[in-house]
Amino acid sequence: MIETVIKTQSKFPRVIILGGGFGGVEVARKLKNKPVDVLLIDRFNFHTFQPLLYQVATGTLADDSIAFPLRKMFKKQSNFSFRLAEIEKVNHQEQVVHTSVGAYGYDYLVIATGATSNFFGMENIEKFALGMKSVKEALNIRSYVLQNFEEAILRKHQGERTKYLNFVIVGGGPTGVELSGAIAEIQLHMLKEDYPELRKEEMNVYLIEGMDRVLGALSESSSKDALRYLEDLGVKVLLNTQVTDYDGDIISLSGGKTIETKTVIWSAGVKGQMPEGIDASLIERGNRIRTDEQCRVEGMSRVYAIGDVAALISPDTPRGLPGVAPVAQQQGKYVAEHIVNTIENKTNEKFVYTDKGSMATVGRSKAVADLGKVHFKGFFAWTIWMFIHLVSIFGFRNRMVTFVNWSIKFFTKSSGIRLIINPYFREDK
Amino acid sequence: MIETVIKTQSKFPRVIILGGGFGGVEVARKLKNKPVDVLLIDRFNFHTFQPLLYQVATGTLADDSIAFPLRKMFKKQSNFSFRLAEIEKVNHQEQVVHTSVGAYGYDYLVIATGATSNFFGMENIEKFALGMKSVKEALNIRSYVLQNFEEAILRKHQGERTKYLNFVIVGGGPTGVELSGAIAEIQLHMLKEDYPELRKEEMNVYLIEGMDRVLGALSESSSKDALRYLEDLGVKVLLNTQVTDYDGDIISLSGGKTIETKTVIWSAGVKGQMPEGIDASLIERGNRIRTDEQCRVEGMSRVYAIGDVAALISPDTPRGLPGVAPVAQQQGKYVAEHIVNTIENKTNEKFVYTDKGSMATVGRSKAVADLGKVHFKGFFAWTIWMFIHLVSIFGFRNRMVTFVNWSIKFFTKSSGIRLIINPYFREDK
Repeated sequence: MIETVIKTQSKFPRVIILGGGFGGVEVARKLKNKPVDVLLIDRFNFHTFQPLLYQVATGTLADDSIAFPLRKMFKKQSNFSFRLAEIEKVNHQEQVVHTSVGAYGYDYLVIATGATSNFFGMENIEKFALGMKSVKEALNIRSYVLQNFEEAILRKHQGERTKYLNFVIVGGGPTGVELSGAIAEIQLHMLKEDYPELRKEEMNVYLIEGMDRVLGALSESSSKDALRYLEDLGVKVLLNTQVTDYDGDIISLSGGKTIETKTVIWSAGVKGQMPEGIDASLIERGNRIRTDEQCRVEGMSRVYAIGDVAALISPDTPRGLPGVAPVAQQQGKYVAEHIVNTIENKTNEKFVYTDKGSMATVGRSKAVADLGKVHFKGFFAWTIWMFIHLVSIFGFRNRMVTFVNWSIKFFTKSSGIRLIINPYFREDK
Repeated sequence: MIETVIKTQSKFPRVIILGGGFGGVEVARKLKNKPVDVLLIDRFNFHTFQPLLYQVATGTLADDSIAFPLRKMFKKQSNFSFRLAEIEKVNHQEQVVHTSVGAYGYDYLVIATGATSNFFGMENIEKFALGMKSVKEALNIRSYVLQNFEEAILRKHQGERTKYLNFVIVGGGPTGVELSGAIAEIQLHMLKEDYPELRKEEMNVYLIEGMDRVLGALSESSSKDALRYLEDLGVKVLLNTQVTDYDGDIISLSGGKTIETKTVIWSAGVKGQMPEGIDASLIERGNRIRTDEQCRVEGMSRVYAIGDVAALISPDTPRGLPGVAPVAQQQGKYVAEHIVNTIENKTNEKFVYTDKGSMATVGRSKAVADLGKVHFKGFFAWTIWMFIHLVSIFGFRNRMVTFVNWSIKFFTKSSGIRLIINPYFREDK
């Protein structure tokens, strides 16, 4: 069967953007009122504010606070259209993207499909551990943690309860740190209120990190402070420790240690997720697409890759840029300008990433932040963290609702959204 | 296998409440500090504020605004415990309730399991129509309506789009009226913004009602006003019309009329949903359990049935009481007192329902309300409706978030939560 290719009916060249994450959305926004036709394709009809996914997983925020409908985001942009579709394959010869709802022809293509959990080939872990890269996965974690408490109270003997009350987070980056802090807060505040049948001491939160410090991408001071905050909350942080296996009940660690647990949350690595049709020679470490210093995919003119799916390899960045939202956003803005310059036959400078700093929060009122050379910590860093995240969330409604939820959390110390709307059964994965 | 029955370890008699709806929750609350041990069992870990389910279905509110965790609700009630379980069977001889997580012995039992959609035996409709009795069903409707818009824009010819853009709501009670009004508002405000590819005129909202007026339980004036409000919003109301069949693409109506549609939402009737073990002779019309005027199930001492699953048959109420929240709540309070009186060997008066009135909202700024003999309508009735619902929602957080969402909806005219988190595919039912 020959698939009909759907071409733009606009007189302008068509830019197809694959993925509505931080990078893709930025490209589309910056192409507003430019002489192009923009088509954004995503498998979800919303943008996900990934830095706060862990708050959905731990019941502080509802899904709708960190998810913003893509059509709504661009309702005032007349050169924008959207298709809800699975992206299947890029055919660069034909300049066509094949999707679950048809094939679309492009003049310019931006691959911004992001990343997914990387289990580094460990099949057992992939089978039994929970990832946290999408709203749906975050909701699964929320349900699953609560389901484990419900299971625990059905067991009379403490030994039988252990595996339901041990929570293991693998990977000490910002996601792992923030998530283990938030689960420790559940232990400190919610457990007693909601599950008087259980004792706080029966629950354990473990954070496993392969390197010798958490938040490896931040300063030594931030790592040290974050570790202290985590330990103050009761999180058992195991540094220099690798996961070797997990059978759904017992996780095995390097050095022979094992932990009985039903819950392993994986935040130890990501890999690019890309459509078919990218030549294997272009794939770098972490399943990322190699680009030149202008974010262009080598050998594919007018095709760009940005954000977590891209590896911009240069003498200064032999391993690519870090997989964080600001890189994707800055690349998105750059690529939008690059496309306009190309259309107007102007030359382009190379992309330069401006690192404005990193931060992570560790439970209520505590955070660490490296802004330039300056390191902040504690309550002050936490207010910076809150402010920056609040203004970064798309949409007035989402900001207001998030503010209400954070205020209530601050005063009650308790996450309010303890709902199991869709129970999560691991065997279903 | 002989199942071990889990008995209360309290010295007080155990009251088991089946179902955490309006009735069950009220029984549990009113038993606070009473000499009983309360065990509430529900298949969900939250109470659902059903009157606002239609706002979840139409994207004005998120699920967490109308769902309140049951454990959190009772965190300060020391004689309360909760089990998340499917209720399977009542064995009155043994005074045991069998559930998916074990068998529990009771001294007093309150059956408050509510109602589910009644398709009156029409299998095709049950197969293809969407019910709206749970949060999950409401979220399915939200996803499905949006998915239909996404499907419609993929069709170039208007004839192919018709069935994706016709929405049929069956049943002109408060749920059907409120839902069809809210979907008509999507047509008026959101469609143009989010789907510029579609014309407003291509979409149709039908409300099918078997009787000669909508809101049959309200006054004639309310019915008339509601009908006018619906028609002002563009809803096509078909009175005196029955559904005869639906094959997933075409709905057939009495009189031979047919409508092409992928979306039929069923709010034309409910039936009680009860555990096994209730004698068939006790089942009244609508699959409800017959009770005496003290809410007791006939022949089963110390067993009560309240709310939508109960039919309190008396000379004054030969068909039972209406299936509305106030009946369940008043019966819940009554039964709690009845149990305490019984324990204290006091006598009980019969249950008397106090009808404080009914109301329904029809889109933004319009509502009808019958309070006693007085009929209100328009903006004033709408503010009453808003106020009463806002104060009735459980929890400060939910009230605040609902208030934010309603305020934004009022000013923007648009429902913000247009998210397809879990796509709904009808064949999966």
